[in-house]
Amino acid sequence: MNLSMYQASAPRFASTLKNLAAILDKAKAHAEAKKIDELVLTSSRLYPDMFALARQVQVACDTAKGAMARLAGVEIPKHEDTEKTFDELKARIAKTVAFIEGFKPAQVDGTEDKALTIKLGPREVNWKGMQYLLGFALPNFYFHAATAYDILRHNGVELAKRDFIGNP
Amino acid sequence: MNLSMYQASAPRFASTLKNLAAILDKAKAHAEAKKIDELVLTSSRLYPDMFALARQVQVACDTAKGAMARLAGVEIPKHEDTEKTFDELKARIAKTVAFIEGFKPAQVDGTEDKALTIKLGPREVNWKGMQYLLGFALPNFYFHAATAYDILRHNGVELAKRDFIGNP
Repeated sequence: MNLSMYQASAPRFASTLKNLAAILDKAKAHAEAKKIDELVLTSSRLYPDMFALARQVQVACDTAKGAMARLAGVEIPKHEDTEKTFDELKARIAKTVAFIEGFKPAQVDGTEDKALTIKLGPREVNWKGMQYLLGFALPNFYFHAATAYDILRHNGVELAKRDFIGNP
Repeated sequence: MNLSMYQASAPRFASTLKNLAAILDKAKAHAEAKKIDELVLTSSRLYPDMFALARQVQVACDTAKGAMARLAGVEIPKHEDTEKTFDELKARIAKTVAFIEGFKPAQVDGTEDKALTIKLGPREVNWKGMQYLLGFALPNFYFHAATAYDILRHNGVELAKRDFIGNP
């Protein structure tokens, strides 16, 4: 099998998002066992000006869905950022995974040199497809997924790195 | 340009490691400005049974160097885990980057189906090259690099995500 833009994106985003959903299951079980209001965990953050857990999950989802849509040239579905509970965050992940798994390899393969204009806050950047996927989307996606994990670990949820890596 | 095993590995590991070195520079400057012993930061962790900052940096380096060596079929250089200061951690990163930048694309390209046996603690796993790179090495690498960033942010070092992403 050859490495391709599809192989480097869809299965990888979907796999890590499913691992993240399983991590949220463990966090929910932890909150229930310890009688912690789950909103304490979903609103927890590592520093006052960092994103809280819920936002880390939302941004991980948006990075994955945006990458697939931009590479394939389809509209990015709009998901409102209203999730507060673990079940709501898992539903956000599930609809993102369903979107990702709807792509066929032919929609994404061959987009290495596709010209993309990405809005990053106030800036607009011009990247090619491969540069965007490998240099921005994947690191940004893993950054937010890992930080979600880190927030939960910092709050005492028992997780191990295999929860994050899953089954490669 | 086509996506390849080389493009998905060497330039990505090297780029993020250089970003991590620049992040350590900012952390060192922060410690000096606030008169904090730098070892307080390099030994900081997000939870008692998580790795400290220095170990996060070492494991990020080892993941990158191990991936390049295994895919290319060369011996993995041994780097002792002795670093304590920011300058020592930056030297560890620099020798890892030099090792990574020594590879030619032809040494790594075409290794998608290469059979690899990886020791993960007590377990041995059998993965193919692409599965190993995309499903283990890259997520694991970004996990440790992001957690290093998270530890420093949690300790008040002023960083932004662009320090992590750098110039894709």
